[in-house]
Amino acid sequence: MKNLVRAFAPATVANAVSGFDVLGFALQEPGDTVIAKPSEIPGIQIAPLQDSYRNLPTDPRLNTAGVAVQALLDSQNLSVGVDLVIIKGVPIVGGMGSSASSAVAAVVAVNDLFELGISTLDLLPFILESEKAATGVPHADNAAPSLLGGFTLIHSLNPIDVISLPTPESFCCAIVHPDLHIKTKDAREILPKSVSLSTATKQMGHIASFVSGLYTEDMEIIRRSFIDEIAEPHRSKLIPGYDAVKSAAISLGALGCGISGSGPSMFALCANQELAQKAGEAMVGAFHAVGLMSELFISKISSQGARLL
Amino acid sequence: MKNLVRAFAPATVANAVSGFDVLGFALQEPGDTVIAKPSEIPGIQIAPLQDSYRNLPTDPRLNTAGVAVQALLDSQNLSVGVDLVIIKGVPIVGGMGSSASSAVAAVVAVNDLFELGISTLDLLPFILESEKAATGVPHADNAAPSLLGGFTLIHSLNPIDVISLPTPESFCCAIVHPDLHIKTKDAREILPKSVSLSTATKQMGHIASFVSGLYTEDMEIIRRSFIDEIAEPHRSKLIPGYDAVKSAAISLGALGCGISGSGPSMFALCANQELAQKAGEAMVGAFHAVGLMSELFISKISSQGARLL
Repeated sequence: MKNLVRAFAPATVANAVSGFDVLGFALQEPGDTVIAKPSEIPGIQIAPLQDSYRNLPTDPRLNTAGVAVQALLDSQNLSVGVDLVIIKGVPIVGGMGSSASSAVAAVVAVNDLFELGISTLDLLPFILESEKAATGVPHADNAAPSLLGGFTLIHSLNPIDVISLPTPESFCCAIVHPDLHIKTKDAREILPKSVSLSTATKQMGHIASFVSGLYTEDMEIIRRSFIDEIAEPHRSKLIPGYDAVKSAAISLGALGCGISGSGPSMFALCANQELAQKAGEAMVGAFHAVGLMSELFISKISSQGARLL
Repeated sequence: MKNLVRAFAPATVANAVSGFDVLGFALQEPGDTVIAKPSEIPGIQIAPLQDSYRNLPTDPRLNTAGVAVQALLDSQNLSVGVDLVIIKGVPIVGGMGSSASSAVAAVVAVNDLFELGISTLDLLPFILESEKAATGVPHADNAAPSLLGGFTLIHSLNPIDVISLPTPESFCCAIVHPDLHIKTKDAREILPKSVSLSTATKQMGHIASFVSGLYTEDMEIIRRSFIDEIAEPHRSKLIPGYDAVKSAAISLGALGCGISGSGPSMFALCANQELAQKAGEAMVGAFHAVGLMSELFISKISSQGARLL
């Protein structure tokens, strides 16, 4: 057992355009940092969070970091005490995988604190427990990339089958988080229960082509296939100025642009940092034109994912 | 202009399990050979076919090879005469892309005969004209792999966007063609018009994962993702003994097994020739057990596709 461990887990973009429900990727920043220390008091204690996150629960049964760590400890039949300090960096309810980042950082920290030796990939089920508790639906397209880094394909949740895809090194992402709240529940309910066979096969073509583009680093294939015919036609209605924001990014050279997670954040995937900066600023401008203030993040894709600090 | 040109185009497997409507691959054999010669009589003349194919039309407006060559000649404003001899090797109405193979071989031959210099990929639209004439629906998942070889992803038909995927060299395929007739129309009508969102995203995961497996030559990923939740549940009902034939192939080590094209042929994708032979024989046995005679083809995947002889 160590005295203190710090771990960082990055924000993520889930439902990444061509890969609704199956594709996500990790940013280098922002991210959440979790400090874990052994405690003489049994159970999990979570310290009060920073002011701007004070709405997040510190009850470990309600906080995703607490739920994930509890699942991890239970799996090892460990009755120990652990203090968690969560330093949030990922905006909540922004569509950047905030709940997953805390859970990932916490589990990575506690695995190291008690020297449990569980492999990174084998930590995923504990994080999915917390994602299920937070959203009612187990989904891994934030948790897996935050844990593993890079572009991550969720092939299956039962059994868990996750594939790390190659990530072109120059890739950079602009994420724009408008001052707008969309409930995950609303974003889910606006989706149709079924899609036409034609739409399904088109989207299969898009995701297959996009994956091919990642392996060959063919920017034109990536550009042509970074298309969402599943969620975007519906969810974009929840975001004022959506079409203008997307057009602004594309016109400045972004490879593609879409909703991050279930929104309201939008992201533009770009071939390099300079393009991401330009695209991001144009997106902020387009949101401003419809009366929405927004926050801009520019980040390369993290090939590393969660890590000990 | 040359005096005589011979071209070969292989049979293909379309709707290849994970990639309904978007994924096909080419076999080394069987295939169709077309001999093209200039003629003093303007227009296209097609010689009578072998006895076992005597039901195929020789009217060039009704034969896929004739339609494709006419489209090619029209695109060049060429009013010439050409004699075509079609030597069929691909069973008709078997789900092995028979109509596409003839059209591909014919177009490749005539492109060379008149020294038109059209690139291989740019020949595809003329073949699609003939596929549209033959089936009422333009589809490329036979034509593209027969032309290009290997595993071929049809990302889009409009505009045409086709991606050649890597093909592990050892791959071998067993194709079993039962003595059974399924009309393409019936196979299409048995499909539902829509699929649940959950089924669509699962299948997106399967095809994305399969493509990843081709790039990394990871046989376990390929095995886990060679799954069809779109067409198989419906079309398998048209093939007596389907489940037993599939189980026979899988139990003998096939990576996956499914319907070739719109059936009734079934194929097993195998890691090597020995496994394909065993799987194929077991499939023939399983069809026999339900009273169906069948023909077995064993072929490696052709990385070459159509070629001049």
